[in-house]
Amino acid sequence: MGKEKNFQEFGLAYGDCDAIGISYFAIYYRWMERTYSLWLHDCGLASHEFPEKLGIYVVGFSSECRYLNQAVVFDWLRCEVGLIHRGNSSYILGYQFTRSDVTIAFGKIKYACRDLEHRKVEIPSSLDDALASLPVFQDS
Amino acid sequence: MGKEKNFQEFGLAYGDCDAIGISYFAIYYRWMERTYSLWLHDCGLASHEFPEKLGIYVVGFSSECRYLNQAVVFDWLRCEVGLIHRGNSSYILGYQFTRSDVTIAFGKIKYACRDLEHRKVEIPSSLDDALASLPVFQDS
Amino acid sequence: MGKEKNFQEFGLAYGDCDAIGISYFAIYYRWMERTYSLWLHDCGLASHEFPEKLGIYVVGFSSECRYLNQAVVFDWLRCEVGLIHRGNSSYILGYQFTRSDVTIAFGKIKYACRDLEHRKVEIPSSLDDALASLPVFQDS
Amino acid sequence: MGKEKNFQEFGLAYGDCDAIGISYFAIYYRWMERTYSLWLHDCGLASHEFPEKLGIYVVGFSSECRYLNQAVVFDWLRCEVGLIHRGNSSYILGYQFTRSDVTIAFGKIKYACRDLEHRKVEIPSSLDDALASLPVFQDS
Repeated sequence: MGKEKNFQEFGLAYGDCDAIGISYFAIYYRWMERTYSLWLHDCGLASHEFPEKLGIYVVGFSSECRYLNQAVVFDWLRCEVGLIHRGNSSYILGYQFTRSDVTIAFGKIKYACRDLEHRKVEIPSSLDDALASLPVFQDS
Repeated sequence: MGKEKNFQEFGLAYGDCDAIGISYFAIYYRWMERTYSLWLHDCGLASHEFPEKLGIYVVGFSSECRYLNQAVVFDWLRCEVGLIHRGNSSYILGYQFTRSDVTIAFGKIKYACRDLEHRKVEIPSSLDDALASLPVFQDS
Repeated sequence: MGKEKNFQEFGLAYGDCDAIGISYFAIYYRWMERTYSLWLHDCGLASHEFPEKLGIYVVGFSSECRYLNQAVVFDWLRCEVGLIHRGNSSYILGYQFTRSDVTIAFGKIKYACRDLEHRKVEIPSSLDDALASLPVFQDS
Repeated sequence: MGKEKNFQEFGLAYGDCDAIGISYFAIYYRWMERTYSLWLHDCGLASHEFPEKLGIYVVGFSSECRYLNQAVVFDWLRCEVGLIHRGNSSYILGYQFTRSDVTIAFGKIKYACRDLEHRKVEIPSSLDDALASLPVFQDS
């Protein structure tokens, strides 16, 4: 653990921007999931295999995003995932979007583990190890 | 057959439009699928159940869209699905996007039926009946 | 004021759902904006005209969504916008997604008014009147 | 001309895939536009500045995509833009999506140049030079 790629990079296209050329507020969420899923895959894990392999599934409880600086078409952005909170059966990840050293947006997603009867269940150790390898983000 | 809802309606939001307020070219494709899938569901059919229920699956071969008139934010559009071609193992559906009586865009998707060993297979009768109930669109 | 359409309805298509057939977490945000923008348009207002007509612009400060019940492909959902908070220069709107009488998700977006020099500015009266006409949603 | 980046790369996330884990047919179009717009920007050009800088605008006439091989979640794809046809006032670009050396999908977009009175107009030389620098794709 420790060398998995916990970020994705992308350039803003016209389809990412609204009528005045500013990045559309909703585009960040899909990049959060892409960054998370590909990082998890880099750790040898895949959410859709959790039920069969680990006897659990992970649900998204909530998502959010704060918009801190404007991004415009052709900007090159980086989305990095970090750990905000690791509980017994749930965890919160942060997603920092930056353009060079300017933070454009900061997202959070809260995840919870359930067994196949939909009851709270501890984070499996393989997933817990992956979470522990992430950089820690301050909750803000 | 015959009273199934073969259209969807929607208003254009900022997220559907590009930097100069014109509808973004890619938005039409998701509305084609929505119109098709909900119409099929209205006919009592669901693509994701085809393998189990009918021993086949349907693949999309190609999609296309021609842009005929501009649509802008707040326009109310209608997407209607119709039949362009019904072959032995494949079919082509058309998707007409209109604002009042102006055609904004015209899409086409070609679908093909495969058995579970990925060989060409005849369109199952339940799906064929559904296709036959659609209005016929001229290929253009 | 008072009879403006403050909701939108839509059926879940395959493109709205993830690999296990559950609605994808990010789809709700675009429907929040669609519901908001079309409602505002129904009130005679358009965000992209605010700079020219009202000498202000409105920025999104943050967005969030809590996922309360699962929705699956073909579900018919309704997104209704309501008022959570109306301040001097900012306001918070809520977005309730329901399937019949089950709440599927609850979203919030915080908006702030700025003058053309990017300073805080009071909500213009025409926008304030529109906000006042919305049903009040409890913050939850 | 000649060293501009005419491709983009991305990993498939859950949000890109449908209910059976296969890439959703509509996702390719936004990547075509991203690849095109960022390449054009690399050439020193920006579509939204064409009216002011060149006295023209470019419209999309049609788009299409053929699906050749299935891609699944976590696949790493490359989208490369090439030239299919360069006419007097219009041009056709091809978009080849590959996973390693397997072609997943092949897209085409037809563009046309218009002056500000919406009449056909010759491709401006700066844009023409950029197009001439692209690799040539066979129309297929």
